[in-house]
Amino acid sequence: MSAPLDSSKLTVTRTTTPSQPKPNDQLVFGQTFTDHMLTVEWTEEKGWANPEIKPYAPLSLDPATIVFHYAFELFEGMKAYRTEDNKITMFRPDMNMKRMNKSAARICLPKFDEEELLKLIGTLIEQDKHLIPVGQGYSLYIRPTMIGTSVGLGVSTPDKALLYVICSPVGPYYKTGFKAVKLEATDYATRAWPGGVGDKKLGANYAPCVLPQLQAAERGYQQNLWLFGPEHNITEVGTMNAFFVFQNLATGKKELVTAPLDGTILEGVTRDSILNLARERLDSNEWDINERYCTITEVAERSKNGELVEAFGSGTAAIVSPIKEIGWKGESINVPLLPGEQSGALTKQIAAWIGDIQYGRQEHKGWSRVVADLK
Amino acid sequence: MSAPLDSSKLTVTRTTTPSQPKPNDQLVFGQTFTDHMLTVEWTEEKGWANPEIKPYAPLSLDPATIVFHYAFELFEGMKAYRTEDNKITMFRPDMNMKRMNKSAARICLPKFDEEELLKLIGTLIEQDKHLIPVGQGYSLYIRPTMIGTSVGLGVSTPDKALLYVICSPVGPYYKTGFKAVKLEATDYATRAWPGGVGDKKLGANYAPCVLPQLQAAERGYQQNLWLFGPEHNITEVGTMNAFFVFQNLATGKKELVTAPLDGTILEGVTRDSILNLARERLDSNEWDINERYCTITEVAERSKNGELVEAFGSGTAAIVSPIKEIGWKGESINVPLLPGEQSGALTKQIAAWIGDIQYGRQEHKGWSRVVADLK
Repeated sequence: MSAPLDSSKLTVTRTTTPSQPKPNDQLVFGQTFTDHMLTVEWTEEKGWANPEIKPYAPLSLDPATIVFHYAFELFEGMKAYRTEDNKITMFRPDMNMKRMNKSAARICLPKFDEEELLKLIGTLIEQDKHLIPVGQGYSLYIRPTMIGTSVGLGVSTPDKALLYVICSPVGPYYKTGFKAVKLEATDYATRAWPGGVGDKKLGANYAPCVLPQLQAAERGYQQNLWLFGPEHNITEVGTMNAFFVFQNLATGKKELVTAPLDGTILEGVTRDSILNLARERLDSNEWDINERYCTITEVAERSKNGELVEAFGSGTAAIVSPIKEIGWKGESINVPLLPGEQSGALTKQIAAWIGDIQYGRQEHKGWSRVVADLK
Repeated sequence: MSAPLDSSKLTVTRTTTPSQPKPNDQLVFGQTFTDHMLTVEWTEEKGWANPEIKPYAPLSLDPATIVFHYAFELFEGMKAYRTEDNKITMFRPDMNMKRMNKSAARICLPKFDEEELLKLIGTLIEQDKHLIPVGQGYSLYIRPTMIGTSVGLGVSTPDKALLYVICSPVGPYYKTGFKAVKLEATDYATRAWPGGVGDKKLGANYAPCVLPQLQAAERGYQQNLWLFGPEHNITEVGTMNAFFVFQNLATGKKELVTAPLDGTILEGVTRDSILNLARERLDSNEWDINERYCTITEVAERSKNGELVEAFGSGTAAIVSPIKEIGWKGESINVPLLPGEQSGALTKQIAAWIGDIQYGRQEHKGWSRVVADLK
């Protein structure tokens, strides 16, 4: 009988040289880490070993470890927020835990008890509470990771794994409010395919996208907008899901559109939250909220007709990231912005809705969950 | 000006505790390693550092290193053979070096001078010459590997990398001659796609294939035969390229078929060698040698008509691996074998041709290259 992940078996070894928090304006995404990390080893024979919190330190791995050769690796991206009454909250962390288990199952890495890992993450955060930045837009980025640690060059199911969690204090993605981005609609490389793993948060989905990103950057675009198939369906941005707002000029009705979860699209927590809030809060006489295929051709045509109203990406890092321009076949599709601003009205509204929930200013269906109480 | 990879700058630190060779019958593929490894660090700023050969030892890496999160990793598989006159030869190693550079370019890892790395590999092999097993079918499996070692959670071009090479003494893939395998034709998962990275030797191509392999194994098949597209084109096996032999019963003419290199197929060195040898040595009045799309439906139909003569996989590990059965839609496509044997006639012939070149019994276009002289 292999042992389950058990937070009650945690051992904590604290650093003897705690670090000082950096000033908020020196925080760079994913570059500074807190003093402690969580590690839990797993073997097929014995299951999950006792969890350990210990000083942040290098991993020591045999050069024949399968994570280096066959990409047995997955991760999650989550944030913890410090509220005004000194609680630490996370935004829908159950969604990340569920997705992490789905990623693990897809590459034969071990599943774990989601509530137990959340408890352990709460305890990890408490160790470094003085390093969690305070203020609107500031948070602790949390990176749960799982790697296959079997040693040997045969390609087969991992019989050893390491789950670890590291944390990075981060600031707002855009220091001075929104900064709308330019995307290049990309059909010269393909991010994901039906029957593949594009809907899972696996390392394998990322390295292959960096060369096209570099190529797009050379033409002045920050990111790729990945297209799929002969119809050039818009899928996602790779680090973000993609949303479009159209207005039918004949009827006046508006539509919020994002790609359906067909196995090629990452199941974004922010994506799901936006769809939920939009369905609850936007007037259904004025709005349709649709998960449907939308081609780049449709976006280009409706832009020409004046029916393209807004576009934005969604993800844990930036919450919503307004899009101001999409390059496609050498032409520019320009996306309207509010006069003198870097986003459209709905983009701004959604960012405010989610920010209020994340920072505990508004309760919404238990989405903001207390994982540690610093009092 | 960033420094090129330079074998003249090599430093060698030898182990103080050299190991004894294992008996040939205890060698398991990729489980035992030699005493030394080659490592070369690279930074964007300075280029390639001085190469080092040192005792085989764990890698120590920050838990935020990009190889753990975004699959910045690639590898090669090569073999070194000990000839009767005490030379160490490798089989077309220039092909592996070229492919390794193509893999590196695809995920923005650094390119290197191919001849320099081959020289370094030769010197590495010399350190552990007593561990290279002797005998037909025995060899030293060589695993050049490159990983991205930048530290940080942003998804971008690596500015640090580590190239390393480890070696494993291995025996014949099948201890007692051939053992024909059963494959499951797989359309419920997709290994590679146009615009993806299926033709590169990236870690990213491997972990996603292990779950389907497990599912096929539960139904009694050793490997997946990956299909692609609505026509169910046969692509490859994931660890091997796939070949089929048909005979047109009306004309008597035979055909050797494998999938064309369309970007979804690994550019196998053994695949290329088989095509070369077949074109040179098979009588063109009797044989057509074709790189063309071939569907599983064609294989099933020609099996029923008695036109399917042989099928085999090709790769560095087994050279050729005869196929005896392919499962497809709940039915079995049976592949003929020679009476009382585990392969067809051409499969056996090709294995002999390549074996003679690899072990230096026959010279062929410089394919067998001396990389170290132990005299």
